[in-house]
Amino acid sequence: MVNPWLDSDMRIDPLEERYVEVRARTERLAAPLSVEDQLVQSMPDTSPTKWHRAHTTWFFAEFVLGADGTSGRVWDRPEYRFLFNSYYDAVGARHPRPDRGLVTRPALAEVAEYRAHVDKAMLDVFGGPSNGALDVVELGTHHEEQHQELLLIDIKHVLAMNPAVGPAYADIVVAPSADPGPLGWVEVSGGLVEVGRTATVGGDFMFDNEGPAHEVRVYDVALADRLVTAGEWLAFIDDGGYRRPELWKSDGWYRALEEGWSAPLYWRRNPDDPSNWWIHTLTGIRPLDPHEPVVHVSHFEADAYATWAGARLPTEFEWEHAARDIPVRGCCLDEQDPGFTYHPTAAGPSTVGSGSGGSGSGGSGCGGLRQIYGDCWEWTSSAYQPYPGFRPAEGAIGEYNGKFMSGQQVLRGGGALTPPGHVRATYRNFFHPHTRWHLAGVRLARDAEAHR
Amino acid sequence: MVNPWLDSDMRIDPLEERYVEVRARTERLAAPLSVEDQLVQSMPDTSPTKWHRAHTTWFFAEFVLGADGTSGRVWDRPEYRFLFNSYYDAVGARHPRPDRGLVTRPALAEVAEYRAHVDKAMLDVFGGPSNGALDVVELGTHHEEQHQELLLIDIKHVLAMNPAVGPAYADIVVAPSADPGPLGWVEVSGGLVEVGRTATVGGDFMFDNEGPAHEVRVYDVALADRLVTAGEWLAFIDDGGYRRPELWKSDGWYRALEEGWSAPLYWRRNPDDPSNWWIHTLTGIRPLDPHEPVVHVSHFEADAYATWAGARLPTEFEWEHAARDIPVRGCCLDEQDPGFTYHPTAAGPSTVGSGSGGSGSGGSGCGGLRQIYGDCWEWTSSAYQPYPGFRPAEGAIGEYNGKFMSGQQVLRGGGALTPPGHVRATYRNFFHPHTRWHLAGVRLARDAEAHR
Amino acid sequence: MVNPWLDSDMRIDPLEERYVEVRARTERLAAPLSVEDQLVQSMPDTSPTKWHRAHTTWFFAEFVLGADGTSGRVWDRPEYRFLFNSYYDAVGARHPRPDRGLVTRPALAEVAEYRAHVDKAMLDVFGGPSNGALDVVELGTHHEEQHQELLLIDIKHVLAMNPAVGPAYADIVVAPSADPGPLGWVEVSGGLVEVGRTATVGGDFMFDNEGPAHEVRVYDVALADRLVTAGEWLAFIDDGGYRRPELWKSDGWYRALEEGWSAPLYWRRNPDDPSNWWIHTLTGIRPLDPHEPVVHVSHFEADAYATWAGARLPTEFEWEHAARDIPVRGCCLDEQDPGFTYHPTAAGPSTVGSGSGGSGSGGSGCGGLRQIYGDCWEWTSSAYQPYPGFRPAEGAIGEYNGKFMSGQQVLRGGGALTPPGHVRATYRNFFHPHTRWHLAGVRLARDAEAHR
Amino acid sequence: MVNPWLDSDMRIDPLEERYVEVRARTERLAAPLSVEDQLVQSMPDTSPTKWHRAHTTWFFAEFVLGADGTSGRVWDRPEYRFLFNSYYDAVGARHPRPDRGLVTRPALAEVAEYRAHVDKAMLDVFGGPSNGALDVVELGTHHEEQHQELLLIDIKHVLAMNPAVGPAYADIVVAPSADPGPLGWVEVSGGLVEVGRTATVGGDFMFDNEGPAHEVRVYDVALADRLVTAGEWLAFIDDGGYRRPELWKSDGWYRALEEGWSAPLYWRRNPDDPSNWWIHTLTGIRPLDPHEPVVHVSHFEADAYATWAGARLPTEFEWEHAARDIPVRGCCLDEQDPGFTYHPTAAGPSTVGSGSGGSGSGGSGCGGLRQIYGDCWEWTSSAYQPYPGFRPAEGAIGEYNGKFMSGQQVLRGGGALTPPGHVRATYRNFFHPHTRWHLAGVRLARDAEAHR
Repeated sequence: MVNPWLDSDMRIDPLEERYVEVRARTERLAAPLSVEDQLVQSMPDTSPTKWHRAHTTWFFAEFVLGADGTSGRVWDRPEYRFLFNSYYDAVGARHPRPDRGLVTRPALAEVAEYRAHVDKAMLDVFGGPSNGALDVVELGTHHEEQHQELLLIDIKHVLAMNPAVGPAYADIVVAPSADPGPLGWVEVSGGLVEVGRTATVGGDFMFDNEGPAHEVRVYDVALADRLVTAGEWLAFIDDGGYRRPELWKSDGWYRALEEGWSAPLYWRRNPDDPSNWWIHTLTGIRPLDPHEPVVHVSHFEADAYATWAGARLPTEFEWEHAARDIPVRGCCLDEQDPGFTYHPTAAGPSTVGSGSGGSGSGGSGCGGLRQIYGDCWEWTSSAYQPYPGFRPAEGAIGEYNGKFMSGQQVLRGGGALTPPGHVRATYRNFFHPHTRWHLAGVRLARDAEAHR
Repeated sequence: MVNPWLDSDMRIDPLEERYVEVRARTERLAAPLSVEDQLVQSMPDTSPTKWHRAHTTWFFAEFVLGADGTSGRVWDRPEYRFLFNSYYDAVGARHPRPDRGLVTRPALAEVAEYRAHVDKAMLDVFGGPSNGALDVVELGTHHEEQHQELLLIDIKHVLAMNPAVGPAYADIVVAPSADPGPLGWVEVSGGLVEVGRTATVGGDFMFDNEGPAHEVRVYDVALADRLVTAGEWLAFIDDGGYRRPELWKSDGWYRALEEGWSAPLYWRRNPDDPSNWWIHTLTGIRPLDPHEPVVHVSHFEADAYATWAGARLPTEFEWEHAARDIPVRGCCLDEQDPGFTYHPTAAGPSTVGSGSGGSGSGGSGCGGLRQIYGDCWEWTSSAYQPYPGFRPAEGAIGEYNGKFMSGQQVLRGGGALTPPGHVRATYRNFFHPHTRWHLAGVRLARDAEAHR
Repeated sequence: MVNPWLDSDMRIDPLEERYVEVRARTERLAAPLSVEDQLVQSMPDTSPTKWHRAHTTWFFAEFVLGADGTSGRVWDRPEYRFLFNSYYDAVGARHPRPDRGLVTRPALAEVAEYRAHVDKAMLDVFGGPSNGALDVVELGTHHEEQHQELLLIDIKHVLAMNPAVGPAYADIVVAPSADPGPLGWVEVSGGLVEVGRTATVGGDFMFDNEGPAHEVRVYDVALADRLVTAGEWLAFIDDGGYRRPELWKSDGWYRALEEGWSAPLYWRRNPDDPSNWWIHTLTGIRPLDPHEPVVHVSHFEADAYATWAGARLPTEFEWEHAARDIPVRGCCLDEQDPGFTYHPTAAGPSTVGSGSGGSGSGGSGCGGLRQIYGDCWEWTSSAYQPYPGFRPAEGAIGEYNGKFMSGQQVLRGGGALTPPGHVRATYRNFFHPHTRWHLAGVRLARDAEAHR
Repeated sequence: MVNPWLDSDMRIDPLEERYVEVRARTERLAAPLSVEDQLVQSMPDTSPTKWHRAHTTWFFAEFVLGADGTSGRVWDRPEYRFLFNSYYDAVGARHPRPDRGLVTRPALAEVAEYRAHVDKAMLDVFGGPSNGALDVVELGTHHEEQHQELLLIDIKHVLAMNPAVGPAYADIVVAPSADPGPLGWVEVSGGLVEVGRTATVGGDFMFDNEGPAHEVRVYDVALADRLVTAGEWLAFIDDGGYRRPELWKSDGWYRALEEGWSAPLYWRRNPDDPSNWWIHTLTGIRPLDPHEPVVHVSHFEADAYATWAGARLPTEFEWEHAARDIPVRGCCLDEQDPGFTYHPTAAGPSTVGSGSGGSGSGGSGCGGLRQIYGDCWEWTSSAYQPYPGFRPAEGAIGEYNGKFMSGQQVLRGGGALTPPGHVRATYRNFFHPHTRWHLAGVRLARDAEAHR
């Protein structure tokens, strides 16, 4: 990829190339959306596309270009610092989150100028003397990748709130999937295993919440060899899954009652035939495909499903231990492929036998685990907590991860809307257990025989 | 004015001319606003400009073009009936009011097409055989005038929520006003007087809530000869008006506490000099002018102020009786005047002496009452209730006024954002007593001497 | 009745006699209730029996015994002024209304001592020199009568919230009623009529909100000759009355949806036979009697019913004008009668023909109007507003009525729980239009022929 | 202790003795409270004393006496099953938790009869053939001990809501404490350690959430040698602890803003001298003692304090590993000691040096750790989650612990209101992180040197 602001094709360093690519992808993702689509905030948890585009830019303006206290000089509209700060309390007051959809001024066109202006100013950073700022630049690109995924799940929610029938982000016709076959189990041997990573100078990028590397005692476990499907979830619904409190955690049961849950978010019964389900996706409304993974379920629903199925959710360490040696491949964001569906796809054919006697081997190996990376994020049973020895960075950047380590649940593995190369075995995503608008699904786990 | 859709300058009838003028004004009022400005709903009480433009058009599509049950053929997007119905329950389900700001699709450009399309189809109505539909057309133009005022007070609220400093609807520099002088009083003789009007065939337009004409017993009263000013309101604030429950109605006191009122809506203390007040207006933020009428106060505040001032609010019949013979002139909407300020203006010089011994005469005459029409709507002490013999029209049109006759308070006289020719002595506006975003102010009243 | 605190049977003046009787009735009404029953507050609108007993006592302690600023010496627990003030903001801070059920200390026994102590101290007032305090004593007795009715409707709500089956305040078996026959209409001639009363020295007691006497223009009207019955209300329910927005005022419709109304408060369908209704009363749960008046409906429901029935509610002046010459007799509180049912009773036989051709005559006469006084309060179409020339009293007592003149609706006529002698033609009761826990029902009105 | 229902002093088995003792303690704890005190529910989280007394009895009636499906025969009031079920959804519908304070009937006296009746019926269980029921009896006694602590923290909240000055549960004058000296640190060596217990036949009682025993990898850690004191907390307040978002977890910060926290629950500034603090306790309101442990803080506050202090909270496994070999002794519930203060007491003299160089030894030993058991529960950094291999029991009893394993935080060590003998090293208490009405305080932890 070529930097469009450079006059010649002089070599650019890998970070600059990465910067240019990431910034360009954000613009590509916003391109199909109208000025109006990009303005709306459909609930407090979501943010407008316009805000995502401005906020990711503000990150570089504030923490890279303005790191020397000159952020005011980067762009002569002081209110940008107030409007497009997300949650960095150390930076100062910020605009109330639920009001992000009221910001008609600056206009979207001005935000586009802001992006271009900051991108231009960033050239000097790459051209300048190497210093600590480049670490922040790298962080900023990973940060922007996270917002690319948020942009897509947020606009999905916005379009779902639009009462006109079937608004689609992308006009793609999605073909029915092949049956992935019955669920199989892969046994993973436990022990005292290492998880997480410790940051090293010159090492690959990692978020602070992935470290330090440390040991945990993991017990033998069997993991399902694929994600739970929509068809399997229908059996849960038909068996009264949403009406049986004994399957649910207490907090989850009350939340389900309060919000009237009776199916995953975005599922709708056909009013003319209630046995028939439709699903709202980024490619519009279409019949539910029983073979695709269930997605847009809360942690509470995932946990209740697992209980109903005689299983449980894996811990984040069971997951990481099993995934560690599996190559990071899978269905992830590929907006330049015209056939890309913006949705998880059905698992391919099984490579292990079905039933609990699966022959997979754990630790190094784990052959047979399908859909570990991509398709959808997998809820784990682990609360999001700091690792032993975790220290947030100093200053505002230190607010990045640490302050959310309360009340949230870890998800692993990435999904169909995760930018390519963004996820890895140690990557920890997190959401509150009641949330459903992000791309989360379910992999089952069971204690291994010896332990049962 | 010439109908732009006609090929020649053939004569058009007055109703058609009125239709064309009203429709054109709506477009002029929306013109300064960006696509984004027109989308936003800043609170449940307000509606987006886009919605106002579509809804006023839907009124003609539904009740005129579609009166024979063919509304579906007028415009081939069935969701418009769902999206742009305001509160006509007889028409069918409608979009939840607080979600009007989420409608990114149809786009604003499509709504503009819808307006043009319906305007074109309306030509046939005017050219066709005269029938009852023309009454509904006339109603529709007055309905649209009401939405013109709503459009302006709603966008004022939207811009006030925008955190950037000083967004203005119109770039006008407003000059300070001259002192209107001390408040005078005009005595109005009572008796058994006629109020309201009874609809007649071929008579001037009236809303159903203005009739039937009937008698009420009005007592002698003294009315203030002008509106309460911002400067007078400051004295109320400084005297603890917002902290003294004995001045307030019970419901008002609790609402004031709950919402933290300490000044009219849109007033802000200068953070560097708390004795100094600023005001958000449609021409941006500027210093408060002590001579301009106070506006954006709730009925509760108006009533508390009147109690503090040793007075009370007038009843709607006292007001109407005093106003009956006063020509309808005053500061009203004039968006084609480049110097128009979109705000009430200070009263001109007094024509009566000050103090309670004012020499005005009531009933026919009432000389000396300034600002009766225009500037701002005047809260009355009258609850909005049906007149004796009131009957709502049959069908959905019957929902126009009658169903709001509970819990609301009558306002009289029109304001600076009311389209010219819209208001009259019998005109009854109504809002809930806690509302503040519309252009309401205060005229005081006192029982006449004999009655005290 | 003999004053129990007097050693001999020396003559006592009528006000003292009245004081003693009223105070004794409060104690009789509380007697069937346990210590626990008397403590509970079942919703913010209601108050505990214990609180009613203390608050009515505090009224005399504060405004009579403590009128000279010595209220602190009456009872040496200063927190009583804070706990048992209802809404007299001029007296000082008071306990938050919704927390009245948390006051376990002082204990009920101490409140009983407080009552006895204040009653004893009041003897000196009666024995002392006649002065203005006696007016306040008289007001205090009428005030306590109002709280007697509140005590009963509040404990009814408390017992209805108790999940055990059928808790009754009084163990009475209620016999089915006779059919009152079809609804008849009584025409009442209008004109310029006098309503209200003006207070005179030595005159009968009146509340300030009943005056001054003044003229209003009333039009000819036909009033239903009895209250709407439970059986007639069932027809409204069966005809979809609670599901048809066109019958409702807008505020009412949204309140009904929000609170899920589908029948009057305290009505329950028999789970085994949904066509069969039961009703919770002060004598326990029993089958609904179709001939008894419907009661515990909000103003919104009453208004919707009237619209459904092709009628409307009367104004408070139509009601007062028709009732003026009717003797004050009817079903009211009679707790010393062992057969008293604490509930409205069916109308007796009609004395006018049915249909709109009723032969009653208005103004002086109105023969044929049944149930004008007693049974249940009748919602009127009139908002509660001050009469021309109304002035609240000075000081805290002035808060008695005036500050509630916003957002409430007038009811007339008294009910089965109103103490005998309490009500009269000019008496104005008032509640917010959504309230249902008090004893309110419906009398229909129609414009007279000439006016229709 | 002698069973009062037995005619002779024949030997009773230890479980029966335990049953009799536990049941008697509940009655002793309720004895100082009036009928009114025992009825009130001051917020949804708390329950009335009356409810605690009935619910703990219902537990035996339902799960022991009625285990054969005959619970209806135990007590002939079927509504008891509805009213006094806490959260066992498998048993059937139950009374809404926030309405527990409305249950005036059954009366408290009837609940006392119910207790006596069930206690009598339980004699047959003890006399009968040994069977599985005895396990449930044992569980029931531990369950009742938990409710004894809840009864006390709930009535503390009830009394705090009472507006009268200074209501006390017990009339005790509390003497000021001696200074416990500066905080010291005790290093605890980590490793692969065993935590939890596995239930064994005939073994000591344990709750299901304490098992199974399993290994965890614990790192070297330094634990504070005593609890944080009220005086130390004052320094946190004075340093802006409640106003500095950088010290707080994100969820905690918003909760603190929403609820307006500026000090621990039950602390009040002296209005006449804001530097002076008072505290509401079960012995009434008294000056805050700077040497007593801070208590009634949420997990969010505990965590913010630790961050401010340059430390963190311990994990539940660090705590358990350090506590394992420490004898269970400390300030716990002792209602029969007339000098018992119902409040945590200041730590005794330190046995280690101050500063981070403390010389304590970890694992087996941990000499120098004061206040490990008793005084107050200690918030840990661990989310409440199931141990590897955890299985809830079958049936309603299985709802005891497992369904709360979401969104809650583990506390360890017991407190001043915990019945003697109730707590142990493996005992896991849990509350939502925002809760403050229970007796929770703070012990700090720091990573050991090598790890830092």
